[in-house]
Amino acid sequence: MRTLYHFALHPASRQARITLAEKKLKVTESPINPWQLDQGDWKKFEDITPEGVPPTLVDVIPSGEIIITGARAICEYANDGSTRHPLLAEDIVERAEARRLADWFDHKFAQEVDALILHEKVEKSIAGAGAADPAILREGRETLAHHLGYFCWLLERRDWLAGRYFSLADIAAAAHISCLDFLGEINWRDWPTLKEWYQKVKSRPSMRPLLMDRIPGFRAPRHYTDLDF
Amino acid sequence: MRTLYHFALHPASRQARITLAEKKLKVTESPINPWQLDQGDWKKFEDITPEGVPPTLVDVIPSGEIIITGARAICEYANDGSTRHPLLAEDIVERAEARRLADWFDHKFAQEVDALILHEKVEKSIAGAGAADPAILREGRETLAHHLGYFCWLLERRDWLAGRYFSLADIAAAAHISCLDFLGEINWRDWPTLKEWYQKVKSRPSMRPLLMDRIPGFRAPRHYTDLDF
Repeated sequence: MRTLYHFALHPASRQARITLAEKKLKVTESPINPWQLDQGDWKKFEDITPEGVPPTLVDVIPSGEIIITGARAICEYANDGSTRHPLLAEDIVERAEARRLADWFDHKFAQEVDALILHEKVEKSIAGAGAADPAILREGRETLAHHLGYFCWLLERRDWLAGRYFSLADIAAAAHISCLDFLGEINWRDWPTLKEWYQKVKSRPSMRPLLMDRIPGFRAPRHYTDLDF
Repeated sequence: MRTLYHFALHPASRQARITLAEKKLKVTESPINPWQLDQGDWKKFEDITPEGVPPTLVDVIPSGEIIITGARAICEYANDGSTRHPLLAEDIVERAEARRLADWFDHKFAQEVDALILHEKVEKSIAGAGAADPAILREGRETLAHHLGYFCWLLERRDWLAGRYFSLADIAAAAHISCLDFLGEINWRDWPTLKEWYQKVKSRPSMRPLLMDRIPGFRAPRHYTDLDF
């Protein structure tokens, strides 16, 4: 029995969900909103999550219960567990490229895009910290366009983001892009190469639960769930 | 022939250096200071490093030259390359714990400690952006103390940071801690458990080059190089 604590509009949480689904690992999803916990629930969550943010995976294995936190550790753990449905290529160069890109999303993209757009539109809204600042959103959108350009440049040269195979890099990208798409932040007409990639990604069964997410206070654009957008 | 572009007082660069040395992989170290490049050198560096910051590993393999950027991708690549001198345990739970902690250092510790102390003392100094702000340093030091407490709590229960074996988690920790120690930011008398761990780490041959680092404009405290500090 596995339980994954996650927050729906959170790229790190989404990476864990997609990865567990790609590996066909059964898991009970337990939504948790770290910005809205009462003190009792916060204490319980913090006890198992020293980072203070999801995702947190609780897995029961023969030697007992284990707790793994953070997207990178959970994704590598899920992939390590079996050689079926591999999410890293056998070729060590393509593996390295997948890890470089996953890390690029979790650091550079997260700091320069998520920390502006998701923070302004999601975290501030949930925390009741006022309206989104248009200047910060503008800055985030400019960097997003720059990064999507790089993303397309890679995809014009490869089958998938890191090379020949679908990998943890595509999962990291899908997690970040799908959150921004939920908020209507991707203008698909401007990015045909990216759109083609995202159509392939969206039609994978692992993405289905994310496309069904309903988040109180937010409404996704109609194309968000549409496979042929 | 391998070349590693790195910056001496930079935790991510240090992780790559320690890991390559632990795996006994010969590498030419090429120091690069991303805050002080002239435009020509910057262009050359940016061409191989879309992240804009080191570490960047250029490796020559039978199929050609490959470029890997970022501490996580370089460390995993080096470890993937051979089963000798493993830096992740065979046990998948201990592997997951090592990756969780490495990620914890690269995200949480980097954001809450490095982004305050290293930024104020190193980056501002190099960029000529004025003196360190005492209020920011104080905030960084308070969080550092909190995190070192967690660190000691783990080490009181384990041989090494992630469990029974020296791992990428110890390397991540050593990279961050050694930068702070270079700046005289660790009061070793307050942290005997951490000190015992760091004595073991410091005496590994992989740490020797880092202890010999000389950085123009900075002077490490005398105990920095001392194995019996």
